[in-house]
Amino acid sequence: MSERNTKIVMKRHPAGMVQPEDFEVVRADLPTLSEGEALVRVMYLSLDPYMRPMMDPVRSYVEPLTPGQVMPGGTVGEVVASRDPELPKGTLVAAPLGWQSHGVVTRGAVRVVDPELGPPSAALGALGMTGVTAHYGMLALARPRAGETVVVTAASGAVGSVAGQIAKLQGCRVVGIAGGAQKCRYVMEELGFDACVDYRAADFEQQLAAATPDYVDVLFENVGGPVMDAVLRRIADHARIALCGNISQYNEQAPYGFQGMRQLLMHRVTVHAFVIADHRAYWPAAQADLAQWLREGKLKYREDVSDGLRDAPHAFIRMLTGGNFGKQLVRVS
Amino acid sequence: MSERNTKIVMKRHPAGMVQPEDFEVVRADLPTLSEGEALVRVMYLSLDPYMRPMMDPVRSYVEPLTPGQVMPGGTVGEVVASRDPELPKGTLVAAPLGWQSHGVVTRGAVRVVDPELGPPSAALGALGMTGVTAHYGMLALARPRAGETVVVTAASGAVGSVAGQIAKLQGCRVVGIAGGAQKCRYVMEELGFDACVDYRAADFEQQLAAATPDYVDVLFENVGGPVMDAVLRRIADHARIALCGNISQYNEQAPYGFQGMRQLLMHRVTVHAFVIADHRAYWPAAQADLAQWLREGKLKYREDVSDGLRDAPHAFIRMLTGGNFGKQLVRVS
Repeated sequence: MSERNTKIVMKRHPAGMVQPEDFEVVRADLPTLSEGEALVRVMYLSLDPYMRPMMDPVRSYVEPLTPGQVMPGGTVGEVVASRDPELPKGTLVAAPLGWQSHGVVTRGAVRVVDPELGPPSAALGALGMTGVTAHYGMLALARPRAGETVVVTAASGAVGSVAGQIAKLQGCRVVGIAGGAQKCRYVMEELGFDACVDYRAADFEQQLAAATPDYVDVLFENVGGPVMDAVLRRIADHARIALCGNISQYNEQAPYGFQGMRQLLMHRVTVHAFVIADHRAYWPAAQADLAQWLREGKLKYREDVSDGLRDAPHAFIRMLTGGNFGKQLVRVS
Repeated sequence: MSERNTKIVMKRHPAGMVQPEDFEVVRADLPTLSEGEALVRVMYLSLDPYMRPMMDPVRSYVEPLTPGQVMPGGTVGEVVASRDPELPKGTLVAAPLGWQSHGVVTRGAVRVVDPELGPPSAALGALGMTGVTAHYGMLALARPRAGETVVVTAASGAVGSVAGQIAKLQGCRVVGIAGGAQKCRYVMEELGFDACVDYRAADFEQQLAAATPDYVDVLFENVGGPVMDAVLRRIADHARIALCGNISQYNEQAPYGFQGMRQLLMHRVTVHAFVIADHRAYWPAAQADLAQWLREGKLKYREDVSDGLRDAPHAFIRMLTGGNFGKQLVRVS
């Protein structure tokens, strides 16, 4: 093999908004395999908001990255060399190989991807981490009942789009919040939400009030910041919040001060913050549901595919500022 | 009877900090009883932080007060006239009669108080609303396990003091937060908390860090504001917060901006906001526990008794600024 491994490492901790200069491309020889290992050539890399807080040198749910480390991330790829007969060449696998073109895996550390369930990239989105995140947050934590009003922020995004469609399948009134008319149109017309409000609109709060006449029983929160506070001003008694993300604040050095503590208390709200990596046992059943909904045409998704690993920093920065439209992927090979 | 009823009404909605001028004393004839009613002469009125947000004209869990309405509140008193044979004269009852010297009750709307369980005033505190609040928040919501670290804010207060003692009974390390050395000494020496940190101390955050070497698994929150944020900076993975009160903000026109959303998310915290009035079915079993702990000497409480109904506004304002020391009561007769 004359191929080499291309990696993108974090060069330094970002100061506020992440910059292209915070990353560095590194090339290395392909690793030599030991018994039981397989070499994967990455086809798609998933870019997700959670990667941003990992770049900050603060206590978190994982060790923060240190300069020189490969950026983390979910990937799907093909086994191109193997010293494990159960992972033969040509096997399609999903594995957390990070921002690189190749990686070494062992059987216990990969999911074998069934190509019958959907295109390989779906294993990173609707049938993978973001789909399972939406499923868990909505059905295991927020548990909306038929007729309740559910608000989903970042509604056209990888998690929000699935979360809202799942709530529709429960018989809820589902209101999305997204940035711009094009995304809102997609959320209503393609994904079937009952309403979608553009948080950039001058009359956003009035539009939100009009879309939630019976207040908000469930909030699936991906964004945080003032948009979250606006939803809190519409919150119903005994509401549940699945706190999944806080993307509006990840690049802020002085975080937004949340105003809604009074609303949480007065309306006896329960807030469930969660990270799907904590719930490995939940994945198979959720993935089976998602695959079935996809087959039945009840689950739609959209991908925003950036081309080439070297474009990953740019695509990542674009996603963090809402420039993507659908699940952000990088086609690596 | 030549007695008259004395009431204290809300004269106007407060603007920020509540003022004595926001209240007015009103006198009226004693009501005439109908069949099935009893007249209660109030002995003790309970003053509690929840009354303050009710004075604001905003959507809440109850209808906000309107000017001229009697201030609400729990009371304990004695039946002095009765047209219900099952509530004979001399019966000791607890009822939500508000800030007044007398009130009319029916059997379904009172709890008959067993004088064997403790002094009458305890029916408003350790054996009443604040005790049951502590029991529910700690044991039904936060559910600390032996060995976990539990932080309780307003630790010398009516709810906090009981909440912390309950956590001690579960085998937890319990750290109080209170205002001033005298309260902290009481919390440690009398109530048996493992530590108590004075939030007014210049090195409060360092003291809190030293008192929570294994981080904070459970927060029983009565205060909110920057003290809550300081605890969030020490929060452990999968922590639970019983969000019971937000007293530091009730008189603020511009609420403090909560900084801890990132910590909630990164540490996958669950926040349970609650109001004990929602959980009427929970009371009897909780009161039985509390009465037993009291009998066994495992539960201590302290009362701060103000004298005379006309002093209630002053005592209320004092309590809202932390000037009380223990459960705030007003001796009415």
